[in-house]
Amino acid sequence: MTINEISRPVCVLGLGLIGGSLLRALKERNVPAYGFNRSPSATRAASAEGYDVSSDLEHTLHRAEADNALIVLATPMPAIGALLESLDTHAPSCGFTDVVSVKGEVYDLVRARGMHDRYVGGHPMAGTANSGWDASYPTLFERAVWVVTFDHALDTDEPVSDAWIKLWIDVVHMATAVGAEVIPARVHQHDAAVARVSHLPHILAEALAIVGDNGGALSLSLAAGSFRDGTRVAGSAPSLVRAMCETNHAALLDALDECLSLLHDARAHLAEPSPSLEELIDNGYRSRIRFEARSGLNAAQSVSPTKISNRPVFRLNPGAENWINQLIQAENLGARIEVF
Amino acid sequence: MTINEISRPVCVLGLGLIGGSLLRALKERNVPAYGFNRSPSATRAASAEGYDVSSDLEHTLHRAEADNALIVLATPMPAIGALLESLDTHAPSCGFTDVVSVKGEVYDLVRARGMHDRYVGGHPMAGTANSGWDASYPTLFERAVWVVTFDHALDTDEPVSDAWIKLWIDVVHMATAVGAEVIPARVHQHDAAVARVSHLPHILAEALAIVGDNGGALSLSLAAGSFRDGTRVAGSAPSLVRAMCETNHAALLDALDECLSLLHDARAHLAEPSPSLEELIDNGYRSRIRFEARSGLNAAQSVSPTKISNRPVFRLNPGAENWINQLIQAENLGARIEVF
Repeated sequence: MTINEISRPVCVLGLGLIGGSLLRALKERNVPAYGFNRSPSATRAASAEGYDVSSDLEHTLHRAEADNALIVLATPMPAIGALLESLDTHAPSCGFTDVVSVKGEVYDLVRARGMHDRYVGGHPMAGTANSGWDASYPTLFERAVWVVTFDHALDTDEPVSDAWIKLWIDVVHMATAVGAEVIPARVHQHDAAVARVSHLPHILAEALAIVGDNGGALSLSLAAGSFRDGTRVAGSAPSLVRAMCETNHAALLDALDECLSLLHDARAHLAEPSPSLEELIDNGYRSRIRFEARSGLNAAQSVSPTKISNRPVFRLNPGAENWINQLIQAENLGARIEVF
Repeated sequence: MTINEISRPVCVLGLGLIGGSLLRALKERNVPAYGFNRSPSATRAASAEGYDVSSDLEHTLHRAEADNALIVLATPMPAIGALLESLDTHAPSCGFTDVVSVKGEVYDLVRARGMHDRYVGGHPMAGTANSGWDASYPTLFERAVWVVTFDHALDTDEPVSDAWIKLWIDVVHMATAVGAEVIPARVHQHDAAVARVSHLPHILAEALAIVGDNGGALSLSLAAGSFRDGTRVAGSAPSLVRAMCETNHAALLDALDECLSLLHDARAHLAEPSPSLEELIDNGYRSRIRFEARSGLNAAQSVSPTKISNRPVFRLNPGAENWINQLIQAENLGARIEVF
């Protein structure tokens, strides 16, 4: 085993799109991994494909406790509280992570149960259009961002335990093993950022779709590229969009208020005798250009055959002096990290 | 010449993206066509490619008057007033159309000069990301919508002249000849529709780009598909976006107010003790699905190798009894028309 490999088996609880894809991706990379799903139909399907899965939670947790597995909570938010209780009872010494798209609320549940010394939060930012084991596939995380949190290191006055550092490293290695780029962030910084760049886009897409539709058949008939792209994510399953946005309501309110303020300014300028949208449009253009530069959207013009991320890279040694400050720096820069 | 061919030469004034592409497309279909551009550099480039072009407006208009050409005003909105004066002086009997993206303001200028009996408005809804002769290409209009207006037929108490009907038919034939789908609409209905489905998407994209950017490097680093698509048109040249949106300020204000009302309702529901976005998200989803059905976005699943438009088709005989009512029906349905 090299230093870049995860040091323990992985136990995935929940085999939907994310959990299922994780189990598939780990098996492809020969990482020992097994899974649990409440519905027997998914475990039957996964078993038939040769995966090591069960629909007996207690049994699965005892097994994880016996081989000191890294447990991944891969269920939707509403199931997390009950799962934590089960972990506390049946796998009291395992380290664990999760894949929920909002991190503050999960962290609050973890802290309320005093389980924060064995928890590292995670958020793989990968597709949500389809769901369930049947929709899962092993390359889902390739080149995706996987946010890994580190609040626990700042929330205690004492140095964090070696066990927690090892857990943190294994979560990073797991994400890296399945092809993701790891970006460190604290839970509130994460939630504020995804409110801006993931949840607000959904809100605006829904509103735009409705205003276009209210214009009747002529409007829909004249709609072209700008409307198609601007409303694309309004085609996502409403239950998934609601779960994301409503769970992150506090941060989303802030982002929405900022957006409303810009739109009201624009409205006021548009209603003047000489209507001008100069401020909104010039600033919006500059912002989009910065995003394109960051995301490497122009990499299509590169001569390299492989797509490259334009994110800066931080290499760091977890547990070494100052490593938490390095994580905060990486968070500020939106940098991806590599662990050595 | 068959009945489906345009009955006169075409004179294109302005050889930017739209005018240049029109001249190229007409020549490819062997429709006699020539052009004017104020800047000699564009006419030199076009001449070198074998196009019949001039940078002498007066000369070009005298030629159009001599061969009864259909004149196409293919300049930006600010140049339209002066061009109308020139037409009045040097080509006083030619019929003309335009390609400006807002129709009410052009129609007002035309009516103010008493030129409405020889005017039919047009709006080819095709790309705006690049501009100038060098960006033009002959297939720009293939499968694009080309709106053709018909207000003059409703604004007079008397029957419209045969000359105007012939002009209207030739504008439709020209658009069809270059591969576009013709949708009839009155100027205010057009302007209201494009405010909803073309100008509002730009406003929202600009605001979203700014809110994402305000989140700093972490936000831009976490931004993925929903942000990329939701801000795409914020990358368009600010001067073009401003010209579109500011010229259509009245209709855009209405669309923006409708959007703000939806967003404020959503904000209120999000701030409740049990945050719920059910109304916005369910309605937005249904609206997007209706748009997808209309635009044939799922045609990718079709076994047909050709992309098909899902717009209804109206076949009509211009000048026949009731043809204007048929146009109004087609407008209500967002139907494309074929002329026989």
